[in-house]
Amino acid sequence: MKTVIIGSGNVAYHLAKAFTQNHIEVSQIFGRNEIELRKISEEVNVPFSTVDLSEADFYLIAVSDSSVENVSELITKENALVAHTSGSLPMEVLKGNYRKASFYPLQTFSKTKNLDYSRIPFFIEAENQIDEKSLLELASIISQNVEISDYERRKYIHLTAVFACNFVNHLFARAKEISDSQDLDFNYFIPLIDETVEKIHYLEPKLAQTGPAVRGDERVLKLHEELIKDDEHLKIYQLMNESIKKMYNK
Amino acid sequence: MKTVIIGSGNVAYHLAKAFTQNHIEVSQIFGRNEIELRKISEEVNVPFSTVDLSEADFYLIAVSDSSVENVSELITKENALVAHTSGSLPMEVLKGNYRKASFYPLQTFSKTKNLDYSRIPFFIEAENQIDEKSLLELASIISQNVEISDYERRKYIHLTAVFACNFVNHLFARAKEISDSQDLDFNYFIPLIDETVEKIHYLEPKLAQTGPAVRGDERVLKLHEELIKDDEHLKIYQLMNESIKKMYNK
Repeated sequence: MKTVIIGSGNVAYHLAKAFTQNHIEVSQIFGRNEIELRKISEEVNVPFSTVDLSEADFYLIAVSDSSVENVSELITKENALVAHTSGSLPMEVLKGNYRKASFYPLQTFSKTKNLDYSRIPFFIEAENQIDEKSLLELASIISQNVEISDYERRKYIHLTAVFACNFVNHLFARAKEISDSQDLDFNYFIPLIDETVEKIHYLEPKLAQTGPAVRGDERVLKLHEELIKDDEHLKIYQLMNESIKKMYNK
Repeated sequence: MKTVIIGSGNVAYHLAKAFTQNHIEVSQIFGRNEIELRKISEEVNVPFSTVDLSEADFYLIAVSDSSVENVSELITKENALVAHTSGSLPMEVLKGNYRKASFYPLQTFSKTKNLDYSRIPFFIEAENQIDEKSLLELASIISQNVEISDYERRKYIHLTAVFACNFVNHLFARAKEISDSQDLDFNYFIPLIDETVEKIHYLEPKLAQTGPAVRGDERVLKLHEELIKDDEHLKIYQLMNESIKKMYNK
């Protein structure tokens, strides 16, 4: 199966690496950003182009959600298999006379970071069972966690990920603003953060909850509200504590 | 220095373990809960009592914030050194004719879990420099991260920890409600969560932010709001995205 990856961002980069590391041949990387494409091309040893999209059996579109539709129109080969990598787009966003699919890796990607691709869950959808099976097999070469998921399910996977990843990182960013305001080294909090996450590897997060709100410790909640000088911090502090109290009927 | 630990909860348990593992002698564990005390006593090989508080040079009070004052009144030995382990109490809460101190370990403790005590930051405060120095030395036997911190600083350490640990765990609990509602295995999200935390070991959380809000992706934000069926989830979703947008001026 002759494969082309379209895109030059973090997802395209890591998929190109995941494929080639697992001896899945990629015949071209195609995109607009020549500087980024050249970097990826050199690292994974696959030719790139910003102009001529190669003929292929499988096109994997790893670009931003808002560009998927436009990019999909560049593919003119009939009967190719074309998949996007988005958690928040249906297959039907792909515009062309070809077989449509989705190939969604659940991870947060940054270029500077090596990843263990075998742990990344892949969620697969295709218009027909033969393509679904072949994409399942393909993803299974890379990862031990591969599942069929339709658009409805994919949307909820993405939504859950926003809570468990994007919002969590934002809390770290807000926490760091507080520690910076007091000249506290944020590194002090890293063992605590590591342990918080380590716990949920074997314990339900609901059972792992600690802190003043779940204890119903109104003295500390009031003390903290008096310490907070920033309106955004206070809004988050109050809403999260209310939500904790509701979950545990405090 | 003859040492007694007061308390039978998670903090007392782990401090007793941290002390004895590092060959700091503990002569008694004292508390009210005989069942828990017996368990700790057997594990760390230190006698316990629920009735007779031993004479000691150093009493470490590891009980809940609301009990510290009452417990501190049990210590009648003049000129002993007495420390509590709370991030949200001043030394002055200790009521007795003795030298007062605070010995605050920054970690989330659960009894079932082994911890690497050498990574846990300890924050020390004492009424006089000699005690401060001896507590610094004591904590330094256990940990590589020991610092003098007065009550003002300790309060902000605790507040930061609430954002970076308690609230983060609550987001995991809310995320799991969403994935449970769709029969999604929460284990799918563990590699993503691990990577989210791994990133902030070497990257500022503010620079590591990903997701629809920081991209200004209003289509996905709207799509997610339509998926959310629970009012608490929606309140968190909206507030966190507003806060992200404000941080990045989106």
